Amino acid sequence: MQTLQVDVGHTRYPITIGSGLLSNRELLESQVAADDCLIVTNTTVAHLYLPNLRASLAKRRVAECILPDGEQHKTLQTAGWVFDALVANKLNRDATVLALGGGVIGDIAGFASACYQRGIGYVQVPTTLLAQVDSSVGGKTGVNHPAGKNLIGAFYQPLAVICDTDTLATLPDRVLRAGLAEVIKYGCVWDPLLFDWLDRNMAKLLARDADALTYAIARSCEIKATVVAQDEREHNLRAILNFGHTFGHAIEAATAYDTYLHGEAVALGMLIAADLSHRLGLTKAPVKERLRDILRQAGLPTTPPRIGAERALELMRMDKKVLAGALRLVLLEKIGRVIVTSEYPQTTLDATLTEYFS
Amino acid sequence: MQTLQVDVGHTRYPITIGSGLLSNRELLESQVAADDCLIVTNTTVAHLYLPNLRASLAKRRVAECILPDGEQHKTLQTAGWVFDALVANKLNRDATVLALGGGVIGDIAGFASACYQRGIGYVQVPTTLLAQVDSSVGGKTGVNHPAGKNLIGAFYQPLAVICDTDTLATLPDRVLRAGLAEVIKYGCVWDPLLFDWLDRNMAKLLARDADALTYAIARSCEIKATVVAQDEREHNLRAILNFGHTFGHAIEAATAYDTYLHGEAVALGMLIAADLSHRLGLTKAPVKERLRDILRQAGLPTTPPRIGAERALELMRMDKKVLAGALRLVLLEKIGRVIVTSEYPQTTLDATLTEYFS
Repeated sequence: MQTLQVDVGHTRYPITIGSGLLSNRELLESQVAADDCLIVTNTTVAHLYLPNLRASLAKRRVAECILPDGEQHKTLQTAGWVFDALVANKLNRDATVLALGGGVIGDIAGFASACYQRGIGYVQVPTTLLAQVDSSVGGKTGVNHPAGKNLIGAFYQPLAVICDTDTLATLPDRVLRAGLAEVIKYGCVWDPLLFDWLDRNMAKLLARDADALTYAIARSCEIKATVVAQDEREHNLRAILNFGHTFGHAIEAATAYDTYLHGEAVALGMLIAADLSHRLGLTKAPVKERLRDILRQAGLPTTPPRIGAERALELMRMDKKVLAGALRLVLLEKIGRVIVTSEYPQTTLDATLTEYFS
Repeated sequence: MQTLQVDVGHTRYPITIGSGLLSNRELLESQVAADDCLIVTNTTVAHLYLPNLRASLAKRRVAECILPDGEQHKTLQTAGWVFDALVANKLNRDATVLALGGGVIGDIAGFASACYQRGIGYVQVPTTLLAQVDSSVGGKTGVNHPAGKNLIGAFYQPLAVICDTDTLATLPDRVLRAGLAEVIKYGCVWDPLLFDWLDRNMAKLLARDADALTYAIARSCEIKATVVAQDEREHNLRAILNFGHTFGHAIEAATAYDTYLHGEAVALGMLIAADLSHRLGLTKAPVKERLRDILRQAGLPTTPPRIGAERALELMRMDKKVLAGALRLVLLEKIGRVIVTSEYPQTTLDATLTEYFS
């Protein structure tokens, strides 16, 4: 079991990572101070882990809100169902919400907690690798609008994050691999040693070795916590975490979010960003090759779909990270260092998009 | 024209109060920095003041979102329509929302601004006395849930507040009087000199004298700003602003929100709170009489409806200000000073409720 502290200026909270945490009554009792709780989860996860979590919270008054599973349910309407459950159980400002599930559950439950009575406490209990290394840490919560992902949301930090690596046992291989894409991203943007470690330990991770997973998750959370501590609201530094995401967003949107998992699209996006970085003379060729190699090891896709260069550019511009017309991109300098810039020749971007998408 | 500064620790913004502000291009241009704006208003106010505001923002790209008029539309669904308008007009993080209307419009538009892309700027342009002296200042935004008012919301401060006293000309008498209840409240909880001033100037206010209105609004905003600066999230001091509101809430809820205007219910609530304070020996009898007298001068009701003592208590407990069972009340010590307490004999509260409600 490892514990980290996230320090976001106005608040501070622990992330605990390890095996058997959902059954660890002592831990849960210490991290969930409230007498009244609402567990928000989905139909899939409820079946697997809800009884366990409930048993560990036996001393609390615990209500449930079980949502349908899937990104298509990450809507304002579904957030409304969480409000209904909070109201129906007469939960007050001193109640705590527990988000038990993947990123979708964490985002909806976190957003509902941010808004209910103008803010009640919530604890993230992520059950997917992607949620454990990314969405559960940093306080970005929200729901989708038909016009775009996460267009409605809040910056709202949890009281605690509890990552039980045992929950990864039930994750389909493909979903685990998609989560690894974000771990690889942390190596690219921040930590060459993590990148090297991943290179040596990929097989262990894919075999779900608990120690290897704990290390990868803890190091990822540590990096994310460091970045978020310096820039909670993404005025500058936090943007580096979007490495691969602007291209990835276009891929997800062009394929109606039903062909690629988020991590798969990010993997492809990182490759394209690395190639553009190389074309711009920012980075040397072997860097791109190392990235491609590690993505292959992780069993992630490395050939983008032919969505068309123009369509890709249009979708990238629609991404909400576009500031007043200038498309800011996160580009690679070397493994462990990226830059955020909107200063590059449009022709080079166009050529890259044509190469991969047309 | 008067200008005040609200200082809420992490942010600072101006409140401007006076006549002719909606036509003051210079003012609007200085306070609305964004090139892209969305004016959120309702069908009633749009007819009266939207052309004026649009003309003063002629240099901006201005979109509109016109909502139906009425508290019954202060819902999550209506907030969804504001998101739709923001998206349909391709408004980005650097856009500004202008809330043109009463408290309902300010609350919905402020909440939508807090959530859109996790927070974009908004400017309050309140057009009712209640909104000018109360809801537009302090950053409480939100929508109602069928189970209770303002159950869904955010603390989110505006970029500026612009109170044009000319907009009060079209206000029905009854609505103006209801707004005065909140001004009287500021006298009770904070400023005996304001109370005395109101006593002497009530006729001018009811005749909509611009100077008198400007003074009353500016002093009210000043008091609210001082209180909110010390306690944005209502951990302690801000609760004094709920004087009369816990009893008033019960009256509004028991009459399905369709018999009394909010200010009218607050007027009745203040009277009951003053009477309870007297029964508890906190205040002397003439204080209650002075309060009753000024409410009568303002043309506000002074006889609560017979909603039943038990029902009233139940509704007061359901009010979200109840903390873990103890019903906190704001009680009067003298004009200009209140205390917040949950330490009083239940029998005295019961006797007061029976006297007024049974």
